[in-house]
Amino acid sequence: MLQSHLFTKAQRSAPKDEQSKNAQILIRAGYVDKLMAGVYSFLPLGLLVLKRIATIIREEINAIGGQELLLPALHPVENYVATGRENIDVLFHSELQGGQKVVFGQSHEEVVVPLVKKFVDSYRDLPLAVYQIQTKFRNELRPKSGIFRGREFIMKDLYSFHADEKDFEEYYERARGAYKNIFDRAGIGEKTLLTFASGGTFSKYSHEYQMLTDSGEDTIYVCEACHIAVNEEIIKDLSGTCPECKKDLSKKGHKAIEVGNIFSLKTRFSDAFGLTYRSVDGSDKPVIMGCYGIGLTRLMGAAAELYSDEAGLRWPSSLAPFQVHIIALSEDAAREAKKLHDALEKRNTRALYDDREGKSAGERFFEADLIGIPTRVVISDKTLQEKKIEVKKRGSDKAEYMDINSFMETV
Amino acid sequence: MLQSHLFTKAQRSAPKDEQSKNAQILIRAGYVDKLMAGVYSFLPLGLLVLKRIATIIREEINAIGGQELLLPALHPVENYVATGRENIDVLFHSELQGGQKVVFGQSHEEVVVPLVKKFVDSYRDLPLAVYQIQTKFRNELRPKSGIFRGREFIMKDLYSFHADEKDFEEYYERARGAYKNIFDRAGIGEKTLLTFASGGTFSKYSHEYQMLTDSGEDTIYVCEACHIAVNEEIIKDLSGTCPECKKDLSKKGHKAIEVGNIFSLKTRFSDAFGLTYRSVDGSDKPVIMGCYGIGLTRLMGAAAELYSDEAGLRWPSSLAPFQVHIIALSEDAAREAKKLHDALEKRNTRALYDDREGKSAGERFFEADLIGIPTRVVISDKTLQEKKIEVKKRGSDKAEYMDINSFMETV
Repeated sequence: MLQSHLFTKAQRSAPKDEQSKNAQILIRAGYVDKLMAGVYSFLPLGLLVLKRIATIIREEINAIGGQELLLPALHPVENYVATGRENIDVLFHSELQGGQKVVFGQSHEEVVVPLVKKFVDSYRDLPLAVYQIQTKFRNELRPKSGIFRGREFIMKDLYSFHADEKDFEEYYERARGAYKNIFDRAGIGEKTLLTFASGGTFSKYSHEYQMLTDSGEDTIYVCEACHIAVNEEIIKDLSGTCPECKKDLSKKGHKAIEVGNIFSLKTRFSDAFGLTYRSVDGSDKPVIMGCYGIGLTRLMGAAAELYSDEAGLRWPSSLAPFQVHIIALSEDAAREAKKLHDALEKRNTRALYDDREGKSAGERFFEADLIGIPTRVVISDKTLQEKKIEVKKRGSDKAEYMDINSFMETV
Repeated sequence: MLQSHLFTKAQRSAPKDEQSKNAQILIRAGYVDKLMAGVYSFLPLGLLVLKRIATIIREEINAIGGQELLLPALHPVENYVATGRENIDVLFHSELQGGQKVVFGQSHEEVVVPLVKKFVDSYRDLPLAVYQIQTKFRNELRPKSGIFRGREFIMKDLYSFHADEKDFEEYYERARGAYKNIFDRAGIGEKTLLTFASGGTFSKYSHEYQMLTDSGEDTIYVCEACHIAVNEEIIKDLSGTCPECKKDLSKKGHKAIEVGNIFSLKTRFSDAFGLTYRSVDGSDKPVIMGCYGIGLTRLMGAAAELYSDEAGLRWPSSLAPFQVHIIALSEDAAREAKKLHDALEKRNTRALYDDREGKSAGERFFEADLIGIPTRVVISDKTLQEKKIEVKKRGSDKAEYMDINSFMETV
């Protein structure tokens, strides 16, 4: 892509009304824009990152048998009366012109369960798992964590349906595997811990995935040996110890942000909507459910915090909007730069070429660091003389002279 | 894909509360599900069709320089006060926990103009065009046209920004070209006419794209010679004649559904938000805007009506969720069918193999016709004896025996 074609521009300073680290850096670099507290636009660079995250999630969830669909955001309030959730404070309410009450989905149990009920009759129809990547609305009182906690955000929500607890537990393990792959591929695996938390209304405990970051909203107690953690809300319940190795964890809490969760829903929602199946013995039984969430926008914010420094972002290759950022420092260099750009695009290596007019070398380097593409290539009269290009990894001090052919082989 | 893996099932009859042809057939075939009037879920098959449409639109809009982004659905009402649109009856209203009023976007001028204003200073920043594929909300009084007119729907909205009218008009022509390509590729080009309509508040006339269908909500007057049409609302203004060849069109109206529109917005929204640019001569001038919409869900409904018969859907290859539907009529045939399925998927030809247990041949054929994949392949003991497969195009009476190798060459 030609950078002159990108309508966004990097900014020297963050907007004054933005307190969160993730939004400050993403706004400065032109990835997102703030419309109001907790509500952000995803600009071309930001949307490219979201699409990379979506692709990773789709591949991993498809691999555990998830069927992708797309549920509406606008829901009849009756479905929430059925589950007793019509008055939770984060629901946005509105009404139709005819007067009927509606709400905007902050989660989709109230829609997916009546839908699945239309297609499940017997044990032969189970298990099944459906998921979507979709926009949710949550009427947060004071959102101030940037894209960590939005009034509008994008989420992958997966729901699984089973004949019995044993089948659910097997699937739950497969979902844990998929989640590990997703966080590993997104580059946050090492910092992200399976965390024991309270189960809310559904069960005693649930599992969260918490990524360690100083600006996180939660406090967790980490067992490094087991690579798991315990959320502050239940650390007393567990007498301050690791649920696996029983080591004392209670001395030091760490700030973290929840990037995903997996829940046992038991028959909480099946009961509310009468979702049953005919079992092998001919009797009707309630369907056992699990639900599994990952916030895509939140994951993007978490990765932005983990992969940034004073100069800007430094995306892992798996999430970066482009792999190579090309800068030319003379007219002769510009011709070579354009050729390199085209050659890279031709072999499907996403490249951004800074072809803008009237910018100094300093401005170009400043913006390149801020945008944070993994590899920067500089072409100048000096590199041309040596028939080389200058290659530098974002975050590294060292630039290296390479000839174009060897460079093309490495990227 | 294995059909046993698909949780949806085709239905013998349409739901009684569904009046529209497009929703009736799409619900019966398992593509969509109705949550409430004007609000539909897109099931796995339906989402595959939507993704095909989205890919066509992205390719064509990227080709005319559109930059994709993603704007929020939740908007502060102040932006609508600025344009005088806060009281239009189709807006969904709600409020934040703190009491501030918000609305849900039915269009995005009120968000995109303040956004673009942050990045446009001088004539050097123009022209630019941004678009999104995003969910809109419209509080329709009585939605009864299935996915033609939803309270929630998916739209591609493109906005272009120009220094002067001449530049806008040039881009408008390019957008017309892109729209022609999109409707042609989606298989509805021949039935879809550029239609002169009233310009609403913005200008005298605007252009709609109307697809001829008996269940359409609009009436248009068609000039076959010019392949254009005039909307009923302005046919009197034009004295009943074609705006190009001046032939009388007024004798017979045709029902049609609007699948897209292109508007000149002039400075209507630039003025409201003070979106100006510094011109070559140093003076500040208002930015000229155009907007260009295509309803993806509506286009899917229009194609479903155009490409269906009494037995069900018959998708054009460009929109079909799969290219080949494979049915096996014996255990030996099933082994060959699975092999064919895997071979097709391996070379990226999307195939659906009906591997479900305990279904009669009649049930399989019935569902295959209803789902409407372009090519049906039947493998039976009889075809195996002749070392052939039976190939039939959806909508054709003739089945043809082919050997697998020649079949693989043709698809």
